[in-house]
Amino acid sequence: MDNFDSLLSRAARSIKASEIREILKLTRGKEIISFAGGLPDPSVFPAEDLADCAATVLRGRGASALQYGPSAGDSELLDEAARWMEAEHQRAQSPRTSPPTIDNLLVTSGSQQGLDLLGKLLLDPGDVVLVALPSYLGALQAFDSRGAKFVGVQLDEQGICPAALEQQLGRLRDAGVRPKMVYVIPDFQNPTGVCLTLERRRRIVELVHEYDTLLIEDCPYRQLRYSGDTLPTCHSLDESGRTIVLNTFSKVTAPGLRLGWLTAHASVIEKLVLLKQATDLCTSSLNQAVAAEYCRRGLLASHLRLVIDTYREKRDAMLDALERHMPQREGLRWTRPEGGLFLWLTLPPELDARELLPKAIAAQVAYVIGGAFHCDGSGQNTMRLNFSYPSLASIDIGVRRLAQIIGA
Amino acid sequence: MDNFDSLLSRAARSIKASEIREILKLTRGKEIISFAGGLPDPSVFPAEDLADCAATVLRGRGASALQYGPSAGDSELLDEAARWMEAEHQRAQSPRTSPPTIDNLLVTSGSQQGLDLLGKLLLDPGDVVLVALPSYLGALQAFDSRGAKFVGVQLDEQGICPAALEQQLGRLRDAGVRPKMVYVIPDFQNPTGVCLTLERRRRIVELVHEYDTLLIEDCPYRQLRYSGDTLPTCHSLDESGRTIVLNTFSKVTAPGLRLGWLTAHASVIEKLVLLKQATDLCTSSLNQAVAAEYCRRGLLASHLRLVIDTYREKRDAMLDALERHMPQREGLRWTRPEGGLFLWLTLPPELDARELLPKAIAAQVAYVIGGAFHCDGSGQNTMRLNFSYPSLASIDIGVRRLAQIIGA
Repeated sequence: MDNFDSLLSRAARSIKASEIREILKLTRGKEIISFAGGLPDPSVFPAEDLADCAATVLRGRGASALQYGPSAGDSELLDEAARWMEAEHQRAQSPRTSPPTIDNLLVTSGSQQGLDLLGKLLLDPGDVVLVALPSYLGALQAFDSRGAKFVGVQLDEQGICPAALEQQLGRLRDAGVRPKMVYVIPDFQNPTGVCLTLERRRRIVELVHEYDTLLIEDCPYRQLRYSGDTLPTCHSLDESGRTIVLNTFSKVTAPGLRLGWLTAHASVIEKLVLLKQATDLCTSSLNQAVAAEYCRRGLLASHLRLVIDTYREKRDAMLDALERHMPQREGLRWTRPEGGLFLWLTLPPELDARELLPKAIAAQVAYVIGGAFHCDGSGQNTMRLNFSYPSLASIDIGVRRLAQIIGA
Repeated sequence: MDNFDSLLSRAARSIKASEIREILKLTRGKEIISFAGGLPDPSVFPAEDLADCAATVLRGRGASALQYGPSAGDSELLDEAARWMEAEHQRAQSPRTSPPTIDNLLVTSGSQQGLDLLGKLLLDPGDVVLVALPSYLGALQAFDSRGAKFVGVQLDEQGICPAALEQQLGRLRDAGVRPKMVYVIPDFQNPTGVCLTLERRRRIVELVHEYDTLLIEDCPYRQLRYSGDTLPTCHSLDESGRTIVLNTFSKVTAPGLRLGWLTAHASVIEKLVLLKQATDLCTSSLNQAVAAEYCRRGLLASHLRLVIDTYREKRDAMLDALERHMPQREGLRWTRPEGGLFLWLTLPPELDARELLPKAIAAQVAYVIGGAFHCDGSGQNTMRLNFSYPSLASIDIGVRRLAQIIGA
């Protein structure tokens, strides 16, 4: 079988190994301090509580927890998600829309599946998606597998720029192109860690309405705020029903459950349920029942406090280490995130993060090249640093190693 | 938001609610005996053993079981799957190929996700897929979401017909069309329950090679054999590496775990791992670890014996009931499966299973209209009957009700 390539779809022909995964392979089995991954700290996983919930679920209602379930999701978990979304809705100061109900919800196998389903729902080859420069690589990959054409939108310390978005939307309209969606991560964006201001949230919701498209609001890190005030979601500010929100248990409980949910207009959910059915029939009934039991016992809120305290200390450690170890070089700067898992380092323009990486690996520290997150290939002098996974001690040592390379 | 439809992809616009799910909705909350679903019998789910495995996994290696895992799958589960596939390989009397290794394997979130990933791997809109008449609805839906064009191939009591397949392949070649794949369920096919003969397996493998395409061999029911001898898989008979096999834990352990695996040429797996990553990053690490622990303890084999004994009794009960209750009518016949979950009933040609359904529901018995499984809209006088889910007593009563309607 040697002519297999000629049978591939366009998407399969164009897909390439993620730079992040390739870097992680390089670090495997070595004593490398890795700021490259995006993993939660496993030392805070609530393994004991989940074991107890799993035992209760399997012994008490194993017949349903081990059976196929509804494609839209387990009703108990949907109820928990609905309560969560209602609280989000109340956060917006003047919510003129009614809060989401279970008809607005779909359980997904992690947020990544939400992105995959949205690609199926909206994209044919060549359809336009607006994304921040830089943006989450997994979203680019999910939309790319549907043949999306990306249009990049400038992002700064206050998040994606409405003026830049408006300019791109206008340019597209002039060219007769109606984009299918604008994809944003308002809270502690991956990869930069920046948070979209309230004013910008409002403006982006307006623009999406004005240009007759949809807003995808990805919220994996939203609950992980270490300082400052929580802002309303774009979804809760949107009276037009054009915002689709993605939430996940991966960062607030554990990624190994592969559980998330998607909130949207009921007519969107109806279509997504059918697409979900063709994709994997349903998300694991067992994991849904375990997560519902975990929420029902009120464990999520107390666990979240532990996660926030742990990651706040790590964020502070990384910011301290950067302050102490980084050389004074023109153009060298980094973000100071109020939450999330990442910060973003911009090198002096004459440096290239890709060229620097082999030196970093040799010095036993790893990061992700910023260019990987730019749909237009820009960002060569940027890198993403993760602070949730490495230990406090490793953060200091790793930043020192990185500083030596950048200063050399 | 009222112009949402104009933003949909072609796939989302064309997708329709599954007739099976719609029928199941009709039966909800009523005292209806349902032969419509395809559910395992929850009374045989190994809930206690799985609770014990989950406790061991979460308490012993929670840090990895709750973390993101490799997109290809958990290495312990891949080892278990490799052993399984090696045993399958040895079953073929003259295996001239080497047995699959973990480089040939990918863990999937149930077999349905395997089908979804194969659609992504191989299909662009308009690409041709050959399927049996009738065939598994979930496969049709998964391939349809990639815009597949289906070509139906006749199936009889011995499975899909090689002569009919050759005719269709020849017709396509004459028209300059190279199909992307032939999709088959050799063992106790869904929906008919028929088993493909050894001779036909060999011939289909030859044809796939001769016409330079791929064979998708879906094996969800293969282990559920109640009588007769197990035949080698097409995969183990194929020296060309053109066969891709789908296996699942859904019917041999529990569907609520959403676990399956796919076996293929290493170059196919490489691409699929990238597509899987963009689809859901990885399958639940927790469920993979639990299943690996379950297999490691040797529980799968003993559980499978219980499942087989339970379903054999139910199959026999349904065949007995049909024999006793069905009227003598010209053209009325049904399959006598040696395994699986379903049998297939063909009505006299003047009867229409869709027209009969409201009467059946009124008489408190349900089935799936056979037409739903035919990509060409034929099969109006056929229906699928499931015997794994209903109780022995219900099977007798349900068949009697159905017989009255058919005889009326």
